[in-house]
Amino acid sequence: MILETIKTPGLSHLSYLVGAGGKAAVIDPRRDCDIYLEKARAQGLEITHILETHRNEDLVSGSPILAAMTGAKVLHGPNPERKVVFADTAREGDFVDIGQLRIEVIETPGHTDDHLAYAIHDTAYPDGAVGVFTGDALFIGDVGRTDFYPERKREVAGLLYDSLQKLLGLGDQAIVYPAHGAGSVCGSGMALREFSTIGHERRNNPRLQFESRDDFIEFKVAEHHYQPPYFRLMERLNMDGADPSPRSLRPRMLSLAELQSADCDHVIDVRDPLAFASGHLRGAMCLPTGMISAFAGWFIRENDRIGLVAGDTGQLASAVEHLTRIGFDTIVGGHVGVVPDAASGADMRTIPMVGTEIVEQRLADRADDWTLLDVRDAEERASAAIEGSQHLYVGQLNEGWRDLDRNRHYTLMCASGMRASVAAGWLAARGFDRLDIYLGSMGAWKAAH
Amino acid sequence: MILETIKTPGLSHLSYLVGAGGKAAVIDPRRDCDIYLEKARAQGLEITHILETHRNEDLVSGSPILAAMTGAKVLHGPNPERKVVFADTAREGDFVDIGQLRIEVIETPGHTDDHLAYAIHDTAYPDGAVGVFTGDALFIGDVGRTDFYPERKREVAGLLYDSLQKLLGLGDQAIVYPAHGAGSVCGSGMALREFSTIGHERRNNPRLQFESRDDFIEFKVAEHHYQPPYFRLMERLNMDGADPSPRSLRPRMLSLAELQSADCDHVIDVRDPLAFASGHLRGAMCLPTGMISAFAGWFIRENDRIGLVAGDTGQLASAVEHLTRIGFDTIVGGHVGVVPDAASGADMRTIPMVGTEIVEQRLADRADDWTLLDVRDAEERASAAIEGSQHLYVGQLNEGWRDLDRNRHYTLMCASGMRASVAAGWLAARGFDRLDIYLGSMGAWKAAH
Amino acid sequence: MILETIKTPGLSHLSYLVGAGGKAAVIDPRRDCDIYLEKARAQGLEITHILETHRNEDLVSGSPILAAMTGAKVLHGPNPERKVVFADTAREGDFVDIGQLRIEVIETPGHTDDHLAYAIHDTAYPDGAVGVFTGDALFIGDVGRTDFYPERKREVAGLLYDSLQKLLGLGDQAIVYPAHGAGSVCGSGMALREFSTIGHERRNNPRLQFESRDDFIEFKVAEHHYQPPYFRLMERLNMDGADPSPRSLRPRMLSLAELQSADCDHVIDVRDPLAFASGHLRGAMCLPTGMISAFAGWFIRENDRIGLVAGDTGQLASAVEHLTRIGFDTIVGGHVGVVPDAASGADMRTIPMVGTEIVEQRLADRADDWTLLDVRDAEERASAAIEGSQHLYVGQLNEGWRDLDRNRHYTLMCASGMRASVAAGWLAARGFDRLDIYLGSMGAWKAAH
Amino acid sequence: MILETIKTPGLSHLSYLVGAGGKAAVIDPRRDCDIYLEKARAQGLEITHILETHRNEDLVSGSPILAAMTGAKVLHGPNPERKVVFADTAREGDFVDIGQLRIEVIETPGHTDDHLAYAIHDTAYPDGAVGVFTGDALFIGDVGRTDFYPERKREVAGLLYDSLQKLLGLGDQAIVYPAHGAGSVCGSGMALREFSTIGHERRNNPRLQFESRDDFIEFKVAEHHYQPPYFRLMERLNMDGADPSPRSLRPRMLSLAELQSADCDHVIDVRDPLAFASGHLRGAMCLPTGMISAFAGWFIRENDRIGLVAGDTGQLASAVEHLTRIGFDTIVGGHVGVVPDAASGADMRTIPMVGTEIVEQRLADRADDWTLLDVRDAEERASAAIEGSQHLYVGQLNEGWRDLDRNRHYTLMCASGMRASVAAGWLAARGFDRLDIYLGSMGAWKAAH
Repeated sequence: MILETIKTPGLSHLSYLVGAGGKAAVIDPRRDCDIYLEKARAQGLEITHILETHRNEDLVSGSPILAAMTGAKVLHGPNPERKVVFADTAREGDFVDIGQLRIEVIETPGHTDDHLAYAIHDTAYPDGAVGVFTGDALFIGDVGRTDFYPERKREVAGLLYDSLQKLLGLGDQAIVYPAHGAGSVCGSGMALREFSTIGHERRNNPRLQFESRDDFIEFKVAEHHYQPPYFRLMERLNMDGADPSPRSLRPRMLSLAELQSADCDHVIDVRDPLAFASGHLRGAMCLPTGMISAFAGWFIRENDRIGLVAGDTGQLASAVEHLTRIGFDTIVGGHVGVVPDAASGADMRTIPMVGTEIVEQRLADRADDWTLLDVRDAEERASAAIEGSQHLYVGQLNEGWRDLDRNRHYTLMCASGMRASVAAGWLAARGFDRLDIYLGSMGAWKAAH
Repeated sequence: MILETIKTPGLSHLSYLVGAGGKAAVIDPRRDCDIYLEKARAQGLEITHILETHRNEDLVSGSPILAAMTGAKVLHGPNPERKVVFADTAREGDFVDIGQLRIEVIETPGHTDDHLAYAIHDTAYPDGAVGVFTGDALFIGDVGRTDFYPERKREVAGLLYDSLQKLLGLGDQAIVYPAHGAGSVCGSGMALREFSTIGHERRNNPRLQFESRDDFIEFKVAEHHYQPPYFRLMERLNMDGADPSPRSLRPRMLSLAELQSADCDHVIDVRDPLAFASGHLRGAMCLPTGMISAFAGWFIRENDRIGLVAGDTGQLASAVEHLTRIGFDTIVGGHVGVVPDAASGADMRTIPMVGTEIVEQRLADRADDWTLLDVRDAEERASAAIEGSQHLYVGQLNEGWRDLDRNRHYTLMCASGMRASVAAGWLAARGFDRLDIYLGSMGAWKAAH
Repeated sequence: MILETIKTPGLSHLSYLVGAGGKAAVIDPRRDCDIYLEKARAQGLEITHILETHRNEDLVSGSPILAAMTGAKVLHGPNPERKVVFADTAREGDFVDIGQLRIEVIETPGHTDDHLAYAIHDTAYPDGAVGVFTGDALFIGDVGRTDFYPERKREVAGLLYDSLQKLLGLGDQAIVYPAHGAGSVCGSGMALREFSTIGHERRNNPRLQFESRDDFIEFKVAEHHYQPPYFRLMERLNMDGADPSPRSLRPRMLSLAELQSADCDHVIDVRDPLAFASGHLRGAMCLPTGMISAFAGWFIRENDRIGLVAGDTGQLASAVEHLTRIGFDTIVGGHVGVVPDAASGADMRTIPMVGTEIVEQRLADRADDWTLLDVRDAEERASAAIEGSQHLYVGQLNEGWRDLDRNRHYTLMCASGMRASVAAGWLAARGFDRLDIYLGSMGAWKAAH
Repeated sequence: MILETIKTPGLSHLSYLVGAGGKAAVIDPRRDCDIYLEKARAQGLEITHILETHRNEDLVSGSPILAAMTGAKVLHGPNPERKVVFADTAREGDFVDIGQLRIEVIETPGHTDDHLAYAIHDTAYPDGAVGVFTGDALFIGDVGRTDFYPERKREVAGLLYDSLQKLLGLGDQAIVYPAHGAGSVCGSGMALREFSTIGHERRNNPRLQFESRDDFIEFKVAEHHYQPPYFRLMERLNMDGADPSPRSLRPRMLSLAELQSADCDHVIDVRDPLAFASGHLRGAMCLPTGMISAFAGWFIRENDRIGLVAGDTGQLASAVEHLTRIGFDTIVGGHVGVVPDAASGADMRTIPMVGTEIVEQRLADRADDWTLLDVRDAEERASAAIEGSQHLYVGQLNEGWRDLDRNRHYTLMCASGMRASVAAGWLAARGFDRLDIYLGSMGAWKAAH
């Protein structure tokens, strides 16, 4: 019997392969789903069931793809709007047997209407569930978002409260296997720890400590979350079933001339943001591989033509991996270069880094044509901010740049300088050229004050 | 924060890497310990502590080796006999901080006098332990052996009982991380499941259901376990500190002539036992790679010179891996061949397979010079046996073969035919040549009756 | 600039990736062609051309598949019958530029009418070709077969002679890159060495030492080659374009019951032939993974339903890899077992191994109902044979078994016992049950006499 | 029979594994020599001989280490000064048999006094050598340096000429296997192509086209080569025998505080030079992993304590790999950070990038306190230079920085900006702070003019 966690970095997505007696089930597979089939069959297991905890909005589900590869049956919760095309609808009390394991369906609406949890029972040791796949209902240290039905905010927060009580009812001994870990866009309060139980969450999870259902609802209704535009695309793909990811993640190789004539909607430079700042091709935006999952969905729309620029081919493959997991397949190709491009006479741009002293000086100078633009999220901004700075969340620069002034001098800042680089790169690609980046940003500011 | 399980197949040994805040601890490392260092540093973690739950008797500890590679401090429980050379002695209540994790020492004697468990606390979520490394005190579905102090049987069984109460006292929510899984020589009753909690064990583990301390002691005192001779070697190495495993697991390559002139104490044929039965070099014993961990320690003594025979070089590397993990380093080399050897005129031997019909016929014939020899363990034998068969545990053939008669005809049997092949190979290497193997063995017998 | 050889074991097939200046060409890609794309793009090269030396008859060409993945142009020689669907026809003197390399087409008919060689020139060092892809015209130590146009035997042998003169005309300095190495069914006289030049072949290749064109023709016309039935399938697939190989090589996992109810045309046991001999499922044939390339094409027909039996899942994946490379995709699934099957009471069969002494005895006894059946190829048989044995090539047992007598006792032999096991397994699967295998076979016989 | 090339990037070093009949030889192994043993034994070959073409001055030889691992015999040429401690002295006409291959010693002094080539003969195809290991005597497109005996310049150039005639005498058909490819510090004129023959070199290699021995000598005597200081260390290690490389390449992980208190002689930032320019820890020098082989030996002395800074742990492992191959083992540890360091308030430094327009402007301004410093090598400088720039080779900044003025403003340039960044980083680490880097450098300048 095995229970293996498959982590997807960037998305902080957790999926699971559970197997016994020659059979296996996969919980919430991602789009590039060869990994489940390979792992299962390498251990002599045939995947017979795919269990979805809910319709994911932050990544492309691999369920229809894996089902086509294996013949496995997909289970999904009841959806009031319309049925998920590729799945059977599962209801409270339904169960699936995987060898000596029995996996029971628990309806847990709140995060989404169709949300299910799956309790794991070992029929050879039957007293109480040994674990539970909690999806986006219960995380370690946090609970699911309830902002997806804006007109039913209070109702769905209450539904989530009730669902959590059901999960607590499984008993302290049940191990918690959630669909996301720390770093996910599906919750900002998750613990760094990757392992917990119903009992440990009952005692420690701040969201399980409210005195009443109403207190919980008040808290959830007051929460602030961002919804990147690509969530709409994900929802549609995950109702209808997405195509398989490309067989190879390595994009077509482009020379500089080929890149420049490729008529791309976006040229994405996936190198280290500091390298981007020192030199990049005119018109390129900055989105390092590790930040694609979090931010590509703000800046790129379905069917936009994407050209990639990297320092080596490994970065290109990593970028394609991240892009295709969230449904961006229209990648024209990848170019390896930058310094060689500069040496061939390409038109290069640079964005200076500045430190705390310069920022202090400029703040003191109160120059009319200068803005310190803080691109952190609202929660970070609320907890501490530099007086005199303005706020616009990095993702919201996708449209918000239109309200900025190309003739103005902007210093971008965030918590460290990473998101500030992404923001600066986006503005640079839109034709802004009086930009610099506060290296160290809020962290450096705090250290100095 | 990470908690990663490193499984060692064959030994069913479980070790752990736990890390947070740039630091890491390893629990019960095996001898080939590069894997811990690689995994830790690949994630930017420096191993600062190595925690031993007890002095292992079934494998070579990697603690002194990993300590030399990293400078980490080794903790080991108090040992009445003498101190473990490479470790500091840890006592109840001592603790180690790994980033935001606090790992607390719990003295849990019984399996061994020096046995410790280590409770894991997350100081950011401090209410109750989130997990516990239980070593050989508590397994999933079983508890530790208490047969290592024959003259103190009742006392140590009672100590284990008390230790288990301490572990139960951590609360239902604590996840259990034991030192062995199903298949280990350290316990025969373990669940196939690899994940559990204190709460689930409290409810389901048969060894935690006794009505009284005395009932538990009675049960443990009545248990039967085998102690392979190499346990003595392991104990010594794990008090004094073993050498690192070889840098490469690939043995020197030997031609057939080189093998034959190498003056080996054992020529071990590591191929599939069925292939061995069809043809093997005269004098070779049968021990497929997957059975080395369980049985090499019965047949091979420290410093015996070992020659290996395999069908390909991958099998050789796997065999060396398994042998060195239990301290057998005196491997002269490896030879790839057998069919080519036969084609070069080498002296080959064959052991026929027989089926149920033939065994039935022979039993009916009651031939004076024939014995059906059952090499399963005492527990299996006790649960069901073929009338007319004799019993000698496969491991005990190491010396027991001396009491058998080379002129007699033996049919070897076990549960399926695998251990029967090992037994037949051992006897063949000792000069017995009226041998055959009951393919399917007890399983086939039961299916037919 | 790179020139990398991609070897395909079993088929002894050699393909090449050659790249310079951001571009690459692939020569004679195999069906599972992700490897070329991965290697090229990992080095920043885009595959722009695929060069076929001829229509392969022993493996499925990956050219149409790789072309679809990359947009590369495929070149193939002029074919009198009809055009290869997915390729442009290349003619003497055509060339392709890959960065600073110029690759020139040389028409070299003989082995096939459409055969091309491709000379490699480095335009930066232009004096003479630096290498040549010789396809199946010139091997190291041998030349191509000329038995594919039975009615034009002399003509095509002469064409090959002329083609070889053209290749010699490139100069001694040109490195030879052939399409096959030793072990291929495309030639039995290849050197074990994997590297040579036109000059070294001119001096040493026995087929380049004939005194006259006529002598060469006489020799080639007298050669004997086998043509496995699957060559027809390959030819058709390689004119029309085959489908991509499966995305995962791991077959669906089957339990014993599922295997038995799967209605397979063939159950192929891919374990070590010696293990097969000791015990196998009734009805299974013997074809170890390493022998699939050479012999599956004799015994299996297009669209036959195949079930696999193995000792572990790695063997299954390897078997699927070999089968799909020669176009056998109708694999129902794979079962891991045999000893467990025996222990569950499955109907098992055994084929004894016998040694030289027993064979001698039987030959001396001249029993009426016994045959020593030699399944080596005609050339081996011609060079030495055991008096009293009969001959039937292992591949020709595909139909030849019909002329044998199920009531007769056959001892199978070959050079070592490997092909004899395949032969015995095939007969066993056809219902023969008085079989044994001469372990060591001709090799052991020679050593003893 | 196999002949496999093992390439070492950075050093552009080529070593070889050649095997036949169960035996193998390795030619010019590098220090991290597990790879040869693994590859050989994975193919069932035992390494019996290690053949050194000469005493390498640009990397640590793995011969004594591999000899200790295998028991193989090491051959080295006759050395007038003193014997290589770990090797037997081989002489013209000596030979080694590796299965059916015979490898013959050819004395080829010139590059070094002890230089040998090794001709490969296949005794089954004996007419003429099929290949030759040419060491640093003959490269593809170039020949060896002759600047290691400054007082015997003409003599050794003549010796090399004579040695090359010997190699040409092997015949056009012999394949050339040199010890270095393009990018090595052992020759600047090598072809990008990795494959050639004696015949192709005879026709195309510019160094083999001189009309007379004297012309050749004149040319070689006039050549200019740099000798990094670490060559002395390499020579000593390769006479006496170096220690094995570390078992793990992953360095001890250091926090920023640990790095800062580690008392390092050098803190080497191994990230992309553009990232370094945007922000780095004060005092750090710039040496990206891919440039370590070429430049570390200029800036670092034996036993200097080294701290590494990287953006991820993969870069750290790569840096250690490159450093240990040239004998720099005193690596205190590695720190992953920079942007997080900035955010924790660390003291950061930045070096601006400038483009052609700014450089033009400054040149036009002829500012007294500004220098455009060209750090390319003498050959590049000779072929084209920017008027008004000064020249100092990047490596020679190791001491040459002392002659520069910390109060002056320097713009660093090379061919593209990469070496300029290394130079700027070195000066920054020495306390210069009026620095910038010409992005695109000579390439951009040429494109603009």
